[in-house]
Parts: sequence; C-alpha cells; structure tokens
Amino acid sequence: MKKLLFMALLLLSVSAVHAQQRTKLPTADLNFISKPLGNTLLQRRSYREFDASKAISELQLSTLLWAACGISDEASGKITAPSAVNMQDIKVYVCTAKGVSLYDAKTNTLIGVSGNDIREALAAQQQNMKDAPLFLLLVSDQDNVQRKNERWGLVDSGYVSQNIYLACTAMGLHTVARAMMDEKAVRQQLGLSETVSVLLNHPVGYGK
Amino acid sequence: MKKLLFMALLLLSVSAVHAQQRTKLPTADLNFISKPLGNTLLQRRSYREFDASKAISELQLSTLLWAACGISDEASGKITAPSAVNMQDIKVYVCTAKGVSLYDAKTNTLIGVSGNDIREALAAQQQNMKDAPLFLLLVSDQDNVQRKNERWGLVDSGYVSQNIYLACTAMGLHTVARAMMDEKAVRQQLGLSETVSVLLNHPVGYGK
Repeated sequence: MKKLLFMALLLLSVSAVHAQQRTKLPTADLNFISKPLGNTLLQRRSYREFDASKAISELQLSTLLWAACGISDEASGKITAPSAVNMQDIKVYVCTAKGVSLYDAKTNTLIGVSGNDIREALAAQQQNMKDAPLFLLLVSDQDNVQRKNERWGLVDSGYVSQNIYLACTAMGLHTVARAMMDEKAVRQQLGLSETVSVLLNHPVGYGK
Repeated sequence: MKKLLFMALLLLSVSAVHAQQRTKLPTADLNFISKPLGNTLLQRRSYREFDASKAISELQLSTLLWAACGISDEASGKITAPSAVNMQDIKVYVCTAKGVSLYDAKTNTLIGVSGNDIREALAAQQQNMKDAPLFLLLVSDQDNVQRKNERWGLVDSGYVSQNIYLACTAMGLHTVARAMMDEKAVRQQLGLSETVSVLLNHPVGYGK
C-alpha cells in the first residue's frame, strides 16, 4: 500500500514537473516554407498514413506552429491566422510520445501540460493515425473573450487548420484535419474546462 | 402605365439574360501567386479601405477564385480548400457593379445570377466597404450533401476564406473577412433557399 502511494505520488510529481516546464522553441525558419503559394495550394492534400519511424525536428515543429498561428507582427501582436473580432481564440496543443504542451505564440515557447501520450485518444477509431509522431490539437478558448461566439470559433479553427495544411505541404509533411477523437479522454487528460470547445486535430508526419 | 409595365418587363428580361449567362474564365495564372508561403503568411493582414478607382482584372479574379476553392486535381475533382467529409459545400458568389455570378470551379466559369449590384447590401453598416470593386460571398450549401453538418460548414468557410486572404496578399490586393451584411437583402437578391447558410463576405480591391 505504501509502495502504491509512493508510486502514485511519484507519477503525480513527474506530471507536475512536466506541467511546469517551459521550453523555448527555436525561431521559425521561413526557408522551410518558401514554396510558392500557388504550388502549395495545388499540392495540398489530406494524407492519412504516417511513417512512425521518422521524427519531426524541433525546427520543423517551431516553423509549423508559427505558420499555424504564430506572431506575424511583434508590435501589434497580430498572428498568421485571422480571427473574428481579433479574439485569437484558437489554442494549439502539441501532442507527442513525450506528452502534451501548449503553444504560446507570444513567447514562442511550449508550456508543459501533461507527461502522457494522448495520441491513442486522438486517433480514436482510426488507430493507424497513431503512427504520426505528432498531433496538433486545436481548441477554441473564449474564456477571456468578451464577445463569445461559438460559430466564429469554428471559422477560426478553419483558418489555423488551413495554415497547418499549407505549411505541411511546403515542408513535405503529411497531415489531415480530423474532428474524430475521444473527446472525453482528451478533455480529462488536458484538464480542459467545459467552456473550451475541442474542435480539430492534425496528425503530422512523413508519409509511408 | 404601359410605359411602366414595359420598363418592368425590360428590367426583368435583362436580369433573366444575365441569369442565363455562363462566362468562361481565363485559366488561373499561378505566377500571380508565386510569393513564398512563409512571406505570404507573414504579410497577411485584414484591410478595410479600398481604392474604388482601381479595377481587378479578369485574370486576377480567376486566379483568386482558383486559390479560394478551385480544382487542384482534374481527375479526382479535388479542390484547393479541404472540406469535412469532402462535401465541398462552400459556394463563392462574385459580386461587382455589373451584378452577381456563381463560381463554378469544375468548368472554370461564372454563372450569372443577378444583374444587380448588391455591394451596398454586403457593406451594410460599413458603407465605405462599397469602394471595393469586388466582393466574394461565401455560403455553405449542403442541399446535396448526405451528412449535413452546420458546424463543419463554418470550419469549411474558414479554409476558403484563408485561401482568399493568402492569394490577395500574394497579389498585392487588400481584403478582410466579414460576417456583417444585410443577410435578408442578400438572400432575396440571390434567391437563396433557407437551407443555405450565408457565412462570410470578402471585399477585395487595391488599398487606398
């Protein structure tokens, strides 16, 4: 019993340590996404098979996150994705084998949220999706927004999702936008409040 | 009285002729949107002032429409914008001083809908928006879709809207996505059924 309690405390503290971690990301490299817009639009596709043996580098991840909804103007705090009444409600969680982090665009850091691998819950009925080394999870968080609007949150997720599609295309990475996931498990793992809308997830990786 | 009737009939017939017209668009020119994706994302902004004296060329319009939701693979009929369960529900109306047309991606044509200038109804309480020589109106039409889903229609509009933003950025054109419009008047002018969701409009033009 004591052993069990010790293990439980250890797990809790590991998770807590992870949750406190802030990891500075390298600056996004725009050379990674220098493909002409027209060709990028032409080649964008939804891909559903991933090579589990090929990792995504930190610089690729940073560039992908910047493209998704990173800061495009330091002075004004504007981001690459439009949002209704500039509410910037879409938050992106980075989910890998190592755990889950929240992308903080302003400081270009990852904020640790959980040490658990939630890719199985994200894959849900399509377990082959788990092969992807990385999932980006898009939620609409309007807790601090005055003019809350669920419909606009959905539109806003489309903006961020298309940025992810296009950046993946430019970097030779595969992805697909999915609404399917075990939402209950995901909410529980990330400790999301009921007011946050869990909208889309993007498995990302190299093709098979 | 006879004169009035004659005028009314003339107006009706002009409108009917316009409604039957199919105008073949020139093939989109990808050189117009060859700006690197990264720089395009960096420079994308929402612009709300337009130069009423500067027109958009037919080739610019065609390229813009292709980027929005044009055919990216002839064989499969896939388009530049993703859509939930590939329902391709977002339809784009082209609204200018000459009237309104519906973009038909498959045939790369504009199908005449109305000879009326509806930009005033689209501008609504922001009449300065009327300066834009062109509005693109995005609706979600799921009449022929089996798995209807209003929420997904909203996400899908975000995909198309971001493509419009990025193509405008690449072509040096200004635009902004707006939900504001006189929806009742727009519905009436275009004869839209109640099942069609009127979602966003994009004034497009050169900046002042």
